[in-house]
Formats: sequence, structure tokens, C-alpha cells
Amino acid sequence: MRFNISKELLDQIQELIHQRNDKDLELLLNDLHYADIAEIFDEIAIEEAIYIFKILDSEITADILKELEEDVREKILHGLSPKEIAEELDELDTDDAADIIAELSQSKKAEVISELEDVEHAKDIVDLLRYDENTAGGLMGKELVKVNENWNVLTCVKEMRSQAEHVTRVHSIYVVDDDNRLKGRLSLKDLLTTSTKTPISEVYIKKVDFVRVDDSNVEVARIMQKYDLEAIPVVDELGRLVGRVTIDDIVDVIKEEADKDYQMAAGITQDVEAGDSVFELIKARLPWLLIGMVIEIVASFVLKDNESAFKQYSTLIIFVPLLSATAGNIGVQASAIVVQGLANGSLKEFSKNYFKKELVVAMISGITISLFLLSFHSIVYGQYHVGIAISISIIVVIMFAAMLGTVVPLFLHKNKIDPAIATGPFITTTNDVFGILLYFAIARLILGL
Amino acid sequence: MRFNISKELLDQIQELIHQRNDKDLELLLNDLHYADIAEIFDEIAIEEAIYIFKILDSEITADILKELEEDVREKILHGLSPKEIAEELDELDTDDAADIIAELSQSKKAEVISELEDVEHAKDIVDLLRYDENTAGGLMGKELVKVNENWNVLTCVKEMRSQAEHVTRVHSIYVVDDDNRLKGRLSLKDLLTTSTKTPISEVYIKKVDFVRVDDSNVEVARIMQKYDLEAIPVVDELGRLVGRVTIDDIVDVIKEEADKDYQMAAGITQDVEAGDSVFELIKARLPWLLIGMVIEIVASFVLKDNESAFKQYSTLIIFVPLLSATAGNIGVQASAIVVQGLANGSLKEFSKNYFKKELVVAMISGITISLFLLSFHSIVYGQYHVGIAISISIIVVIMFAAMLGTVVPLFLHKNKIDPAIATGPFITTTNDVFGILLYFAIARLILGL
Repeated sequence: MRFNISKELLDQIQELIHQRNDKDLELLLNDLHYADIAEIFDEIAIEEAIYIFKILDSEITADILKELEEDVREKILHGLSPKEIAEELDELDTDDAADIIAELSQSKKAEVISELEDVEHAKDIVDLLRYDENTAGGLMGKELVKVNENWNVLTCVKEMRSQAEHVTRVHSIYVVDDDNRLKGRLSLKDLLTTSTKTPISEVYIKKVDFVRVDDSNVEVARIMQKYDLEAIPVVDELGRLVGRVTIDDIVDVIKEEADKDYQMAAGITQDVEAGDSVFELIKARLPWLLIGMVIEIVASFVLKDNESAFKQYSTLIIFVPLLSATAGNIGVQASAIVVQGLANGSLKEFSKNYFKKELVVAMISGITISLFLLSFHSIVYGQYHVGIAISISIIVVIMFAAMLGTVVPLFLHKNKIDPAIATGPFITTTNDVFGILLYFAIARLILGL
Repeated sequence: MRFNISKELLDQIQELIHQRNDKDLELLLNDLHYADIAEIFDEIAIEEAIYIFKILDSEITADILKELEEDVREKILHGLSPKEIAEELDELDTDDAADIIAELSQSKKAEVISELEDVEHAKDIVDLLRYDENTAGGLMGKELVKVNENWNVLTCVKEMRSQAEHVTRVHSIYVVDDDNRLKGRLSLKDLLTTSTKTPISEVYIKKVDFVRVDDSNVEVARIMQKYDLEAIPVVDELGRLVGRVTIDDIVDVIKEEADKDYQMAAGITQDVEAGDSVFELIKARLPWLLIGMVIEIVASFVLKDNESAFKQYSTLIIFVPLLSATAGNIGVQASAIVVQGLANGSLKEFSKNYFKKELVVAMISGITISLFLLSFHSIVYGQYHVGIAISISIIVVIMFAAMLGTVVPLFLHKNKIDPAIATGPFITTTNDVFGILLYFAIARLILGL
């Protein structure tokens, strides 16, 4: 079952396209999983992908479409008529169809919707388009199996059979009242193990986890993870069942959230990847570089101001990169731990205990590094008093950096700004300025300059 | 359904414990989800947690145990006898039970296993202990529903009902031959919608995704994500069905992998968090700080060597922090994109195209920054020739940093080392040394020093 795109396979496919040998091409591709075909589309020319797209069944092409990278999908949709796009969307679950429609231009969107064949499906998709993509409403699908609390199990099973036809994965059977308000759930397992004569009101579980349409996707992910749920029903303001979110959508949210933190730490403002254009890469990266530059220009003034000091004791200046790097590193370490603590809920606000612990860590790290440095400085440059001045300054700067690294993400979080920003270039460069300022101030004080 | 630990709730619980009012305490806690009780355990004293643990049913305490943070769990298990632990494990799924047993000391492990009541369950747990925790075998559980290809649907449903009693979530029904070799699967949906008279051989789907026991957990996660699976069967070397991995275990793997990258980027060697001890925090952080220090000592030699240059033109030295920060930032940006490309498979090895793109990005970024800097230098310090020397040097250093940032993670990946290391302090400090070296070399060349 392990699939790896080989050069041979790609050559074979391209050769078949070239020969217009649709029969063999179909035979070859029908053996592959749609996710694998989507991967192949990344490797071949867009005309070839469109060619393949047109000879395959819409049942499989719809799934391929869903799996494609956004930019490849955009190009393929560009090559299809609204009617052809609608045919694909008719095959997809409402949430996937809505996601794809949302990517279309305003005018094409309307045309595609009007071409959808299944009216119920179309209504559901249009309904989903209303929700912000970062909410439970934006994640949910309309496909679910629900039964009325007033039914008996027999009616229920019959109804469920017909509903299940439209649902790829039946996770839970939701129980609603006559007004469609969520009352509880029936588990599939109960259904397998209960006699068909039992009335619904006796079997259903009244305790049911749910989220509201306007809950954020991150909150939905947190709840599903914490309570180990594979699907969760979504209700509107009146408690009416309007959809359900499944675990596979949440996997994407979790991954995106984690990737976002990583990108922040690496100083990239948005979701870019190796395949993006130079323009997109620059748009995501240059802002941080420029912010860093501006802050470091401030650092250059601080150095200029202290010229007399390092002209007198030249070793003062040669350890500035070491100072910057160490302060930056410890600041980012401190911030990263706070950011992760905030993300997993183990840290909620400023905690005196944690702050003290961080200061102890910083002090021990600072003293260790300073002792190394003092020995090094004494051996290589002599001038013990300068070595001591540098070492003491570095301890203070390290402690300051750790404090800043702890407090800034908490401050950002409190002000509803993503705290992960603090683990990016911002904190390292800011640390540089304060660090160099402190370093020279303390060194001058000790050296009497 | 939103649960938040309030000060009032904690006070109430602690008051009830203090009064030894077990009845009201049970009443209060039985209303809560086990995951919420686990959260409460984080906030109260360990003696209080053990007190609660002993008055609740093992059905719920087993689930609490599973949810706890490893250090809290360790303390609670310490307060329980092997027999009491075994009672908890009897309630858990094999994979969760095996994970908890694996945390026990060697001697306690044997005692606990001998106390397990359900012999089949015990055998399954012992079997699971054999596997490395980072493989499919380490992730899988023994709970699954399987039917023989030679049965008919009637026998099948009967068998399944009894098997399903032991399985929390029935995802798929696996079909095996007489030797327990995996042949295919039956979907629950098919079962709901197919007449009970059909023979199994006619209904079952022969195409089934599976993984081998020794596949890595990251590979299992990749496959389940790519093919959108909620459960995947695990087979041994002979193709025999030995277990299945479910999506909730994979969610943890995905999160851990992403968190690991983030921690690498932040210069933390292992999974630490805000709640850890000072010693653990230092163990995870000091190594990177020391590595950074050693590399920056090299940088100090480079600066010392160039003393004459910056004594003559003092603005040369004051932009060194800017140079370091910019080179570090662009290097980490470049590495992060490569690391993510490698992780999601969009980048597999060195790609000339990507390398060229990265150089173009670096060049445009470098020129932008240099132009700013040149203007700034000219306005504030005059000395156009020095400004030009600094600007040109910075362009070269930025391009070099981007190259290093692109190549290092690819090199690490090729040598089976986690490429995310490259986004940590390692690349920034290395960039510093080469950057400062290049910067002065070029500046001296231009200024004729």
C-alpha cells in the first residue's frame, strides 16, 4: 500500500497522455487512490492534469479536487466550465464543496451554485458559505444522521438507513426534538447491541458534547482533543442542530496552529511553502527582516554612544555578538515555553511561581556562561577586571532577557495578540537593544568609565 | 458544556475532602467528565488527588489516569498497590494500559501484570509492551472487530455484536482468512444498508490500507492523514492482523511532531513545559546556550582580528548587531521553509529550482535592506564610501545566510538527522561567525584596508 511517485510512473502517464491513449490511462489511474493522483498532479504540467481530470469519473475527480494544493486547484478550476465544476461539487460533502466554492471569484461562485443539481445539497452549501472559516460553522458539514426523540427504534433504523446513504462516516446518531433542538445521541455501538423494539427515549444518552456555530476552530479542536471526540454536533443560538465537525477537519486545524507557531518563531508572517512564488515568499518574510533592521538601527546608536568605552577596552566590543546570541536564545526559550503553556492551557496568566522558576533557570544559565567566559577572557586577554565586568554584565543581560521573554508573550496574550510573535525575530532584536544598553551601562559602572 | 475550573469549585472539593464527606464529593464529581477531573488533579495537592481517586469507581478513575500528565500519574500510581493499579488497567483499552505499564519500574511492572484479572486482556497488553513506542506497534490497540471471510453476514453480525462489547469505537470491520491474514474490510455503513442474507465474500472490500508493526509513528500519521483514515489495521511480517491504530492516537503524534519542530526552532532540546522543574528546564536549555556561546567565541576572534578596520571606520562595528540579526533571521526563514517542505513532502531533496528562488528572495531582501541602510548611513554619518562598503557586504552576507539556511537542513535530512535543528540557535550563531568574517573581508576590500 506504500505509494511513491516514481519517475517511471510519471513517464508512463505522460506518454499515455501524449498518445491520447485514454483507455490505458484510465486503467492505470483507476488503480490509484485519489490522494495519490492529487500528488501526481503536483508533478505534471497543468494541461496534463486537466487532460487526466476530464477523462476520469467525476466521482474520483471530485475527491482529487478536494485533496489538491490550493494553487493547483485554482488552475484546474480555471480550465473547467461552471457546469463542470458543479458536477464535481455534487459529489463532495457539503463542507468540502463549500470550501472550494469559497475560493472562486464572486461571479463564478453564483454561476456554479446555480448549476448544482441536487437542490438540498445546494441549499446546505450556500448555508455553509455564511460562516467565517475560522469558526465551528466554517468547519462543519451538513452530513449527519439524526433521529427524532419521539420515534421508536424501528422507525429510527429505517430513517437512518436512508440518511446514512449520504453520509460518508456515521459517527454518532444525534437525537433532536420536533424543533430540531439537540437533545442527545445514540451510539452506533448501542445500536448494534440493542434490540430493535426499544423506544428511542429509553436508549438515547442525554449527555452530549456540542459546540456553537460561532465558536472558534481552535476552541473546537481543543474540546475534541480533550474529550477524545471523533465528531461533535454544532448548534445555533437556539440550540438547533445545524451540522457536525469531524476529527479529520480538526487534524488540519491542529497542524495549522502548530505550524503557525513554528513559522512565527522563524519570522514568517503567513503560511508560505517551498512551492510559492518569489513574490509571496518576499511578502511573508521581508516585513520581519525590516522590523529587525529598524530595531537594530537603534542598537547601532547604542554602540556608537559607547564607542569611547570599547576604544579603551577592546574586548568589550568583541563579545557583543556572544551577548546578543545568548540573550536572544534565552529570551526565545523562555517565550516558547510560555507560548506552549498558553496553547495547552497549563499556563493561563502571569504566574509568580513560574516567573521565579524562570529567573532561577536564567541565573544558573547566566552564571555558568559567565564563568566559562571569565576563564576564557582571563586566559586569552588577561585584564581580570574587564573579564569580571563583562561576566557580571552578561548575567544581568541574560536575566533581563529571560524576564522579557516570559512577560512579553503573556502581555500579548492578555491583549488578544498571538503570543507566538514573541518567539520570532521581534524578541531577539528587542533583546539586542536592551541587552547592549545594559551591558555597557554595567560594564562602565564596574570599570569606572 | 464549556468547563472551566473555578476557584469556587476547587474550594468546594477541598472542603469536602477536608470534611471526609465522601457522599457529596462523589455526587459532585460524578457530574464531571473524566478529562475535567484530570484537570482538577493538576490544581490540587497529590494527597487530595489520591483521596478522590480512592473513592471514585475504577471505571472513571481508569479514564482519569489515562488523561493525567505523566508526572501527576506517576505520583498517584506510587500511592496505589499493584492490585489497585491492575484494577484500573483492567478497565482501559490495551494500548492505554500498555502505555501506563511501560511507565512503571521493572519490578512493579511484573507485579501489576500478574494481578490483571482478564487473562486475554493481560496477554494483549504484554504483547503490546514488546513494541517500540515510536512505531505502529507502539501506537496500536488490540481492540478491533474482525470477521472471517468464510462466514455469512448472519454469523458475522452475531460475532460482531459480542466483539463490539469490548471495543469503544467500531470504525471498520476487518476481514481475515483462517490464518488471521488481513484480506479486506467491511464498512459499518455497508452493514447498515445491506441485507443480512448476503455472504461476506460478496460484500467485503478487498482494497484495504494497512501499516506494518514496525512502521514509524510519523509514517502512520502521514498515511492516515493523506488517505483521511480514522483507523488503520496493523499487520505483522506475515500479513497477519495484530491491531489497529485510531485517529486520536495520531492526533497526538501530529501535535508532538509539530511541537518538536517549534521547540527546536526555539533552542530547547526536549519536551519541557512550564510545569517542569528547574533542573529539567536547565537540562533542556543550557546545552543550546553553551553551543551558542562556543560558536560566538569564534566570532569574538573574528572581531578581534578586524579591530584595526573598525578603529579606523567606527560605523563598521556599530552595524554588526544589525548584520547578525538580519543574517540570522533570513537563515532561519530559509531553513524553516525547507524543514516544513521536508515534513509535508513537497520537498524531497536538493532542488535547483527552489535554491534559485531562495537566492532571488535573498537578493531582493538584501538589496532592499542595504538601500535603507545606505540612505541612513549617508544621512547620519556621511562617509558614502563606508556606507557603500557596509551595504555591499550586507547583501553578500544575507545571500550567504540564505544559502546556508537552505542547504544545512537538506544536508541534515540526508544524513538522517532532524533538519529542524537547523532552525534553532545553531544556524543563527554559525551565521554570525561566517557573516562577520565575510562582512569585514568585503568591507576591507572595498575600503582598501
